[in-house]
Amino acid sequence: MAIATKMLQFMEKSSWIRRMFEEGARLKQIHGAENVFDFSLGNPNVPPPDAVQKKLAEIVNRCRPGMHAYMPNAGLAEVRCAVSDYLSREHCVSLCSDNIIATCGAAGALNIIFKALLDPEDEVLAPSPYFVEYGFYADNHGGVLRTVPTLADFTLDLDGMAAAMGPRTKVVLINSPNNPTGQIYSAESLQQLGRLLEGRSKQYGRPIYLVSDEPYRKIVYDGHVVPCPFDFYLNTLIATSYSKELSLPGERIGFVAVHPHAADLSALLGALSLANRILGFVNAPALMQYLVAELQGLTVDVSIYQRKRDRLVSGLGEAGYDLIVPPGAFYLFPRSPLPDDVEFVRLLQDENILTVPGSGFGGPGHFRIAYCVDDATIEGAMPGFARAINRARSAG
Amino acid sequence: MAIATKMLQFMEKSSWIRRMFEEGARLKQIHGAENVFDFSLGNPNVPPPDAVQKKLAEIVNRCRPGMHAYMPNAGLAEVRCAVSDYLSREHCVSLCSDNIIATCGAAGALNIIFKALLDPEDEVLAPSPYFVEYGFYADNHGGVLRTVPTLADFTLDLDGMAAAMGPRTKVVLINSPNNPTGQIYSAESLQQLGRLLEGRSKQYGRPIYLVSDEPYRKIVYDGHVVPCPFDFYLNTLIATSYSKELSLPGERIGFVAVHPHAADLSALLGALSLANRILGFVNAPALMQYLVAELQGLTVDVSIYQRKRDRLVSGLGEAGYDLIVPPGAFYLFPRSPLPDDVEFVRLLQDENILTVPGSGFGGPGHFRIAYCVDDATIEGAMPGFARAINRARSAG
Repeated sequence: MAIATKMLQFMEKSSWIRRMFEEGARLKQIHGAENVFDFSLGNPNVPPPDAVQKKLAEIVNRCRPGMHAYMPNAGLAEVRCAVSDYLSREHCVSLCSDNIIATCGAAGALNIIFKALLDPEDEVLAPSPYFVEYGFYADNHGGVLRTVPTLADFTLDLDGMAAAMGPRTKVVLINSPNNPTGQIYSAESLQQLGRLLEGRSKQYGRPIYLVSDEPYRKIVYDGHVVPCPFDFYLNTLIATSYSKELSLPGERIGFVAVHPHAADLSALLGALSLANRILGFVNAPALMQYLVAELQGLTVDVSIYQRKRDRLVSGLGEAGYDLIVPPGAFYLFPRSPLPDDVEFVRLLQDENILTVPGSGFGGPGHFRIAYCVDDATIEGAMPGFARAINRARSAG
Repeated sequence: MAIATKMLQFMEKSSWIRRMFEEGARLKQIHGAENVFDFSLGNPNVPPPDAVQKKLAEIVNRCRPGMHAYMPNAGLAEVRCAVSDYLSREHCVSLCSDNIIATCGAAGALNIIFKALLDPEDEVLAPSPYFVEYGFYADNHGGVLRTVPTLADFTLDLDGMAAAMGPRTKVVLINSPNNPTGQIYSAESLQQLGRLLEGRSKQYGRPIYLVSDEPYRKIVYDGHVVPCPFDFYLNTLIATSYSKELSLPGERIGFVAVHPHAADLSALLGALSLANRILGFVNAPALMQYLVAELQGLTVDVSIYQRKRDRLVSGLGEAGYDLIVPPGAFYLFPRSPLPDDVEFVRLLQDENILTVPGSGFGGPGHFRIAYCVDDATIEGAMPGFARAINRARSAG
């Protein structure tokens, strides 16, 4: 075999997920797409705000010379200023445009951060359940992902994190609101985490960086607000995107924001910019930079997601599912009625309902429902969800 | 220091180029931008064809639901079909859409190829002078770049390449038309290279892949045509972008095309798609995929570059510079009148002319002029180019 050994292993490992997708495609072919209830993908279905289309048309029609040209690897001055102004207003930290690097989405942001920070065998510590791509992102740059289970309600287990931290820990990576649990980490827990990181950075003689992956910051319900990690720890980097906030995931636009008092700030910013270049991103897509520069603070209509969440929470609750009501993101992460979550996900498949086993997110015994789907999918799936839990119970 | 050791080294190594850019900025501040003649960057200055603006406006105004959504990591069906149809018509190889992966430019294309192919310590062999980013791209994925000098006219030294190839050679990477020399590799030399690679693949018991980085394929002069490496070797991947063809470098749109008879085709395509995902590109920017799908075969007005090339070739020739007339790309790579090309580039700087030393491209004793600049820059620089060579001669 000619391709890289590691990539072959990755493809084999992920192949059961692929088989699930293939199974989904097969089901849709047999029963018709409208009779298959696909909750497997986190692809936002709420349309972008109207202003996106309007601004985009304006920018395209304005057609400035050089608008599609190369630019500094860190991005256009316009977007870096707009983002730093907005973040400075939103949070209690005064940022300047130098603290912002425009990126190809949050995935690009995390990759340039890891490239900039990780020496071989350095560890990235993340609470689990976690977004499965983190393991790949750390490995891409010679690092190793270590995970620490959260508490039963998916909040941070700070004792567990303290126990797992060591001299090779270079990054602590949090994701709040979380994919797959929808949980938000409280200001109090972030403050404790900040203190822990300060102490350990001193103890180990090198800074541990807190990386906050927060593309779901604005997808929150019931008046919840996501605390800003900048407020609790200086060595913090925020990685995010407009994929969910503006429903633009295919356009690959996001940014890194670095705390203005982070250790080795100037070298860190230089390394992020260089990483953007040499990893082949070069710069975030130009047109999308112009667009988001003019749309700071705008968010999709979150009430649509809230309605879907509420319908599922009540429907699944009535059917007997055990779940935490998630304050943010667009995922539910119920307990699997069978100990083996893969087996239960297969039971749901028999009902033409596609979900993802929690094992895939380091959260076995649960399954993920991505409810960024149309209402008909939710209504259509309800009887199947009820039948599946009943079958699981009678099997148990 | 907290950031990755390797990144620190990279930043130090590249810092003298950065100092040159800073010197350029300093000169522009003192003398005014219009009195500094900047030939240092390969940033296309010929505007995109009118159809780009027209199509872009059309696509934005059409505003299909889901047009900014996630998609398969390999790209939209539309663009993959359009590219495979176009390449099948242009070359003698019949491609299907599965053979195409849409990427974030050619830099993204090369990175997913190296991620898919390279095991630790695998070698990428490239003729020099070469695009300086290749070393980073190979290193990103655990590989090592080895270079082999071209002949005096910058054509392939096949004996040199044969001598440099060994059991660790996984990829041979060519770039034609070449940055920085503008040279095109002939059909005959590609045929010989193909035979060499076939023999060595057999000898070593694993395929060596030929990767052809060809973003300048359509930027050619005097009726030159760039031979297609697909015609001469099965294990070939083409990496390219629309950055130069359509003057869209800031938008990060390009593709990988894999020969339909390449070894391990299915695994290779799967690995490329997975690499696009896990490196954080996820997919090429959606809007730009829709755009290029409708503009296959369109090219900027190359006669503008040709006029600039001709003016520089005749002007520099009269001044006494020794150079090969490049058949493609938008670079001249004259011999440095001083043995030390960095020293001569400093002489040019004294004339407010910014160029890049050939040493930066593995081509010492030369310097690179990027002539994708306006005519006034070329005319304004002519007296300075003449004075610099005269000063070099009187110093010599």
